Amino acid sequence: MTRPDPASAGKASCPDHHFFGPSSVKFHVKGAIYPIEVGMRRVGLSRRYACRDTSFDSMPLYDTSGPFGDPAYVHDPEKGLAGIRETWGFSQETVEAPGATPSMTGRKPLRAKAGQAVTQMHYARKGIVTPEMEYAAIRENQGLEAWIERAGAKPVTPEMVRAEVASGRAIIPANINHPELEPMLIGRNFRVKINANIGNSALGSSIEEEIEKAIWACRWGADTVMDLSTGKNIHQTREWILRNSPVPIGTVPLYQALEKVGGKAEELNWEVFRDTLIEQAEQGVDYFTIHSGILAATLPHAEQRRTGIVSRGGSIMAKWCKAHRTENFLYTRFDEICEVLRAYDVAVSLGDALRPGSIGDANDMAQFSELKTLGELTLRAWDRDVQVMIEGPGHVPLNLIRENMDKQLEYCHEAPFYTLGPLVTDIAAGYDHINSAIGGTLIATFGCAMLCYVTPKEHLGLPDRQDVREGVIAHRVAAHAADIAKGSPTAWLRDELMSRARYAFAWEDQFALSLDPEKTRRVHAENIAATGDTAANAHYCTMCGPDFCSMKRSQESAGL
Amino acid sequence: MTRPDPASAGKASCPDHHFFGPSSVKFHVKGAIYPIEVGMRRVGLSRRYACRDTSFDSMPLYDTSGPFGDPAYVHDPEKGLAGIRETWGFSQETVEAPGATPSMTGRKPLRAKAGQAVTQMHYARKGIVTPEMEYAAIRENQGLEAWIERAGAKPVTPEMVRAEVASGRAIIPANINHPELEPMLIGRNFRVKINANIGNSALGSSIEEEIEKAIWACRWGADTVMDLSTGKNIHQTREWILRNSPVPIGTVPLYQALEKVGGKAEELNWEVFRDTLIEQAEQGVDYFTIHSGILAATLPHAEQRRTGIVSRGGSIMAKWCKAHRTENFLYTRFDEICEVLRAYDVAVSLGDALRPGSIGDANDMAQFSELKTLGELTLRAWDRDVQVMIEGPGHVPLNLIRENMDKQLEYCHEAPFYTLGPLVTDIAAGYDHINSAIGGTLIATFGCAMLCYVTPKEHLGLPDRQDVREGVIAHRVAAHAADIAKGSPTAWLRDELMSRARYAFAWEDQFALSLDPEKTRRVHAENIAATGDTAANAHYCTMCGPDFCSMKRSQESAGL
Repeated sequence: MTRPDPASAGKASCPDHHFFGPSSVKFHVKGAIYPIEVGMRRVGLSRRYACRDTSFDSMPLYDTSGPFGDPAYVHDPEKGLAGIRETWGFSQETVEAPGATPSMTGRKPLRAKAGQAVTQMHYARKGIVTPEMEYAAIRENQGLEAWIERAGAKPVTPEMVRAEVASGRAIIPANINHPELEPMLIGRNFRVKINANIGNSALGSSIEEEIEKAIWACRWGADTVMDLSTGKNIHQTREWILRNSPVPIGTVPLYQALEKVGGKAEELNWEVFRDTLIEQAEQGVDYFTIHSGILAATLPHAEQRRTGIVSRGGSIMAKWCKAHRTENFLYTRFDEICEVLRAYDVAVSLGDALRPGSIGDANDMAQFSELKTLGELTLRAWDRDVQVMIEGPGHVPLNLIRENMDKQLEYCHEAPFYTLGPLVTDIAAGYDHINSAIGGTLIATFGCAMLCYVTPKEHLGLPDRQDVREGVIAHRVAAHAADIAKGSPTAWLRDELMSRARYAFAWEDQFALSLDPEKTRRVHAENIAATGDTAANAHYCTMCGPDFCSMKRSQESAGL
Repeated sequence: MTRPDPASAGKASCPDHHFFGPSSVKFHVKGAIYPIEVGMRRVGLSRRYACRDTSFDSMPLYDTSGPFGDPAYVHDPEKGLAGIRETWGFSQETVEAPGATPSMTGRKPLRAKAGQAVTQMHYARKGIVTPEMEYAAIRENQGLEAWIERAGAKPVTPEMVRAEVASGRAIIPANINHPELEPMLIGRNFRVKINANIGNSALGSSIEEEIEKAIWACRWGADTVMDLSTGKNIHQTREWILRNSPVPIGTVPLYQALEKVGGKAEELNWEVFRDTLIEQAEQGVDYFTIHSGILAATLPHAEQRRTGIVSRGGSIMAKWCKAHRTENFLYTRFDEICEVLRAYDVAVSLGDALRPGSIGDANDMAQFSELKTLGELTLRAWDRDVQVMIEGPGHVPLNLIRENMDKQLEYCHEAPFYTLGPLVTDIAAGYDHINSAIGGTLIATFGCAMLCYVTPKEHLGLPDRQDVREGVIAHRVAAHAADIAKGSPTAWLRDELMSRARYAFAWEDQFALSLDPEKTRRVHAENIAATGDTAANAHYCTMCGPDFCSMKRSQESAGL
């Protein structure tokens, strides 16, 4: 089992293979309905821990890292990941390969034949459980079905997934042209998900860096990745990311469309936009953010705000509307957009062009009138079996967060909510990942299905590798804390085992169960080194020292 | 205006004087009742920003950094800070200097004469507004009385402070032997405060480092500092910290008492403890954490827990109780403890010895039965005019946080609540400052008066300088977000100005108004450097680049 030399392995090498720690192994759970193998990660523990009426000497974890989580895996970024979904036989009778440009791996793009639909929602409504649904169901349970039942809850079943997708309360973003994908479920009755944004802006960053960032983000726990590139080589960057990504990839097609018309918003038109949708759908993008909800009539409200329009897509369409003195074509052409999405199963993430960019603008007329429009568009997308989620704010003071969730459920018919934070103050630049995790935890507890991460660089610059890691982990804390608050038995088990390992001074078990095993192991080792003791057996840490360790004393005292 | 050479200025030099930025100046507001000068910091802005019916070209900020916030200030740590309260003539008729060891500055410790009380609560109940009350009132308003009234709220008055202190809903920890203190108010009807813990453990850290950490912590916004030293030189470390600290200093006297009996909990006794209280009270410690609420009868509940007793003081007293098979002497001697506190005006922070150390232990019988005992002790302390606050958890899932606040208000008669987080999951080691900020924001919004910070090193080791900074700022985000959620007009103004500066691309104004001006300035400069543009005029940042800046486009479009 050799690993590529990090120095020579090229554009998307994996120098950090072992960061999960020595006790972590990748394993797969087989499907009962389909011949699928659902990837998970198991961390071995140094002893058995009793939890309620069960004991555990390992814990299976939900894992977004795909094959990269396997220390034995050797990756060639030029070849991309294996196309696991190619063997699932999806949509064989309904799709065609119309002869468009093949992918870098030589595969020809598929699309639904005329009059056909290939979306997960289409199958779900017809009562069909797809391999993607079974995959997602197995994945949610983490192989802990028995534990979940003992905790008095119900394991997720493929049929439950089908019903949620059919109702629109959950989506599985899974473009038929992204066979490398490990399908994943977004909906408030499931594990809270997080998204990491990557993408070069015109300034700085290279394609190689972006691919590495994408792999890096899912290693740390990003459930989806949005490629928000706006500079050169947009098409090629996206191709590399898709072929190397085990998680759903989202984009904002408007950015590329704008590049095609020389960056001039007023020169955008439907034909350029539609061609861009098709180009990206053929590549395999799993969801598109589309700013169809910003209407000409609401622009005056936005112009009175403290910070106007802070959505990039929103500001582009506002400019277009004003220049043409006509309605947003992403709204007027929405049915045609849905026809494209339906042919590839691209989910639509309805953009909140008018999200507040300052807490003073939160929950205002501009924001909520757009949200109502998004609700109307949701029904139109569902008419065509297109999967929908709804994007949300933004900057919202803590006391106004609940209203956002309540109104979203009401206006948007329970389509999954996907928020950017919210940030609960405007003054936390440099620490906005923390700011966002605070608001994110609360809204996810209330029912938000996915949190878009914010990095420490928000409001200041383009995030680098370390920013991505910090942004992802901060939002993994938020999502997990929300799962805990919602009573998820699998989330509770991880905390329970962590705390028992902590009380047992089983340091390696603590590292393995933490969100960032590499950091916890390194920090503890640095601190303990001075003592001559070793992490494996030290019954204290340097925070309190051996004589003041409360847990050590508490155990001694219990034995008196 | 010379500054000491960082390399030669000795143990508590101030090499980072200018980290607030060039537009920041220290200024003072004079008292109307007493000849006091209340320190604040003003940041100049590059232009006037209209907010409602007012415009601002600067903003005064609440400032915990004392004289260290003044770039012109030259500090000699050997001499300590000026004893500003010495000139306030406090307690002159009621105190005596009984001839105990003088401080390092040569001042003899004061105490109340027999039968006298010198506590803020004592004066408040007699209807007397003290200089400390006036200082705290002026400080809360940040010189923004007119703005507060225009926002429909009421500026804090000295009489309002007196009434809150008299009722026990607020405290001003201000030992008569800590003349260097800038008095500060802790109560839920005022600005949310944060505490930073410092202190050497037996392993690592030096006195010099601890003093530097204390100054460092209040520079970044810690409202109080707890010296939790447990190693050698406890007395001397504390003396240096007190003489150099403009913020209240808290301690856990039990730690030093334990050192005095060779680290053996079972050898603790009332005499050693009482002597330690007096020793520290004479030095000027402003509040003591005392674990009087852990009772022998509740220990069996704690022993059934996942993580037992995670409070250091709690684990010591549990061991003592078990060894002696008798009741906690901090409980049985509580009235005598209060007599000491009353003579120096040391506030008591009633320790939550049985706080949960894992989310599975949250809100259990052990925790809430101790909380009831703390309520009983509150009344006994108030009988002697001793100021009280109540310590709280700990590890609590988000959905159980509200119950903590509600029960604390009910059981403890509205005495201020002071919580450690709470942490909303157990698995965030390495990122527990974020974890704590999440729970802290929520409980502070519900009414918690002060948050104890948690650093990224929690559960792993002793925090260093950078950890202290990150811990403080994370909890400043939490406290500020809670102030925003509670509707504080001064908190809202800072966000409003920040957002207007952001929309105006006034980068220097954004840096000055942010919680960490040094970091925001540095990060932005690093990112913009590549472009050949300068931070001062760039109408974008590298996050989106000049062609995709939504705010830039939004402004252009509004002009169409």
